[in-house]
Amino acid sequence: MIDPVVLKGFRDSLPKEEIPKKKIIRKLEDVFTSFGFSPIDTPVLEYTDVLLGKGGGETDKQIFRFHDNGGRDVAMRFDLTVPFARFVAAHHAETGLPFRRYHISKVWRGENPQKGRYREFIQCDFDIVGADNALSDAEILSVMHASFKALGIENFTFHISHRGLFSLFLSELSLDQKSVEILRTVDKLRKIGEDEVRKQLVEITGTEENATAIISYITAGDGKDFMETVKKLEELTGGASEHSERIRAIYSMLSSLGIEKEFVFDPSITRGLDYYTGIVYETFLNTLPGIGSVCSGGRYNNLASLYMKEATPGVGSSIGLDRLVAALEELGSPLLENTSTSDILIAPVTGKEAEALKKAEELRKKGFRVSMYLIPDAKMKKVYAFAESGKIPYLLTFNDEGTQIKDLRTRETVTECEMENNLA
Amino acid sequence: MIDPVVLKGFRDSLPKEEIPKKKIIRKLEDVFTSFGFSPIDTPVLEYTDVLLGKGGGETDKQIFRFHDNGGRDVAMRFDLTVPFARFVAAHHAETGLPFRRYHISKVWRGENPQKGRYREFIQCDFDIVGADNALSDAEILSVMHASFKALGIENFTFHISHRGLFSLFLSELSLDQKSVEILRTVDKLRKIGEDEVRKQLVEITGTEENATAIISYITAGDGKDFMETVKKLEELTGGASEHSERIRAIYSMLSSLGIEKEFVFDPSITRGLDYYTGIVYETFLNTLPGIGSVCSGGRYNNLASLYMKEATPGVGSSIGLDRLVAALEELGSPLLENTSTSDILIAPVTGKEAEALKKAEELRKKGFRVSMYLIPDAKMKKVYAFAESGKIPYLLTFNDEGTQIKDLRTRETVTECEMENNLA
Repeated sequence: MIDPVVLKGFRDSLPKEEIPKKKIIRKLEDVFTSFGFSPIDTPVLEYTDVLLGKGGGETDKQIFRFHDNGGRDVAMRFDLTVPFARFVAAHHAETGLPFRRYHISKVWRGENPQKGRYREFIQCDFDIVGADNALSDAEILSVMHASFKALGIENFTFHISHRGLFSLFLSELSLDQKSVEILRTVDKLRKIGEDEVRKQLVEITGTEENATAIISYITAGDGKDFMETVKKLEELTGGASEHSERIRAIYSMLSSLGIEKEFVFDPSITRGLDYYTGIVYETFLNTLPGIGSVCSGGRYNNLASLYMKEATPGVGSSIGLDRLVAALEELGSPLLENTSTSDILIAPVTGKEAEALKKAEELRKKGFRVSMYLIPDAKMKKVYAFAESGKIPYLLTFNDEGTQIKDLRTRETVTECEMENNLA
Repeated sequence: MIDPVVLKGFRDSLPKEEIPKKKIIRKLEDVFTSFGFSPIDTPVLEYTDVLLGKGGGETDKQIFRFHDNGGRDVAMRFDLTVPFARFVAAHHAETGLPFRRYHISKVWRGENPQKGRYREFIQCDFDIVGADNALSDAEILSVMHASFKALGIENFTFHISHRGLFSLFLSELSLDQKSVEILRTVDKLRKIGEDEVRKQLVEITGTEENATAIISYITAGDGKDFMETVKKLEELTGGASEHSERIRAIYSMLSSLGIEKEFVFDPSITRGLDYYTGIVYETFLNTLPGIGSVCSGGRYNNLASLYMKEATPGVGSSIGLDRLVAALEELGSPLLENTSTSDILIAPVTGKEAEALKKAEELRKKGFRVSMYLIPDAKMKKVYAFAESGKIPYLLTFNDEGTQIKDLRTRETVTECEMENNLA
């Protein structure tokens, strides 16, 4: 007998998890599609060279990498961004540019599993490549906004910042050379707090003054609205710049869409990754700050440079689906509540199967989800238990005395018409 | 510069492939759901022991197998059946039985890629476990029927056979011991022809008489309708048996659903795999016989026996999604024809972006898929080329003179109302 276990950091998804996950994915796909984003897919396995071209170092140990039967050095994808960069290099002539794609699929990382983190998880990425302007930035942000609305989430805030503007600020302090370290430190603000960030900034930049200046920049948004913060940052960066103009243009588009209230400008957002060059953003659920960002991304202007000569500017976002599902669960989302497998359970006795099958077909044609209880003459206790485990609200029995419909929530007998009206 | 190539036997899926694939999957999911089947998911990577428990031998060399960073012997799943058997053993207490699940996901096999065969491909499996009766057999068959109808395929035939009945026949010939070899040989009938099958059967069974008897059994359906064939087979197996009674009961249920015309009883169908014990079936498209079976499966009564003591009878089917898509393509299915990424393309000049964004939002609220052309002031030639590559039928321009809508198929100017009516 083999123990039916899965690997550490992996898990099965049961219907009660998979049903809401599929609902969420469909809603997101419908939003992406309504904005003209197209689905693509890429292989789960790729040449290790292709995947690790960029950002080898830290990622290296965390990937599932091996030699296949043909002796090729291969690896399972650890994100959807690198495969997308390769995809753009390979197919941009065919897809045309600008190109909008979404990709919802699994990725794998060998890191040590922690609570709520797995070695196999689903990412949901959407990107626009081939355009570098406020219109594309605003479009990505409005797709994000529409996505959260479509999921029935009301209380969320997008925290926007701009890497170009921060770089400008750092270059005024002559700290360009240290920007990668500084960005990574600032990125930890929420985790390690202002005092610790200040301490590390003093170490990196060499002076208290530099640390203080940086802290004053990254906290410039505290208690201010979007445009007040932008004005304050313009003051800190020697007046209006192409970057602040871009931010103003984006904000004006968000305002004309009437969705600007969910956006704050938060200069403490940097995103750790090197490749961002323009706006960067994270998304927080106001009532669940502890859960962290559920949708993050930014503008990069050279993502596919490893695979092609032409620069392909882009802007994109990534939703961690597992974290999103966890958040929706905590919010008591109705999307997660209704995980019933069917609307109606039909239980026939022996000899009534044909009749029951016909009735099931008739109800399906009306749009209902109908399960057949597949063991005729079973004890009613078993039938009820089955209905309960599938959260099925109605039971239709076929026995020699005729048919009967029960509302299983009230255990009362109802007519077919009442059932249909109730389910519709 | 790294060459943006994928591994041999793997491929990217571009929007023109991915859009119809997603449409097909949604249609299948809707059918499965309407029958009360629930989605599940399992890890892509599993312990090799768990995956190879059954049927090691031939499969062994064909799988992607390696040692992970923790030294575990792991493998990528090569089908969805073995993980499902493990899943049932692990979770049947929670899911309850009978349990109906579907699983549409990728699997990997290291075999040498041929035309139309890849090392990474999508399977679509649906199974019922926990019931062994005509009702469950008929339900799987009617899910298959409903699936093909939902995909708009009209001209298909399900070829049904019964392994138990064939075993009964072989035991009357005292050939029980050789049944595995005989089944595998008969399974090749379509590929190698009757003469070659006869030759091999003589070798296996030792006599011309045996070979002739088996050939007469497997060709007993030629030119006969379903019930005529069943009667003929009853004669060849010493009269009615539990197996022929089961077949009669299934057929009667299919008839009461009015779908029996798409079913033939074809005793040459055996399916190669050892684990089938009851009905087995393959599905052929009448106008595309060369493409082979697009949906196959059968009843197995001991699938999870490697992982649990209790027998869990089941019946299930598998659709090879890539083969199905290829078939739909050859049939000229409308599902594959309409791969437009959007209904409407909006192209604003600089200064009109906000207005354009608002109009886009308004049209999305009406249910249209709207793409923004993200480079304001682009040459109209480029805008047209973009619309064409995305097969977008309408173009709405925002410039300083106002807005204009063009039907790109006729290049004629239309009103918003005409566009909306036309798209609705």
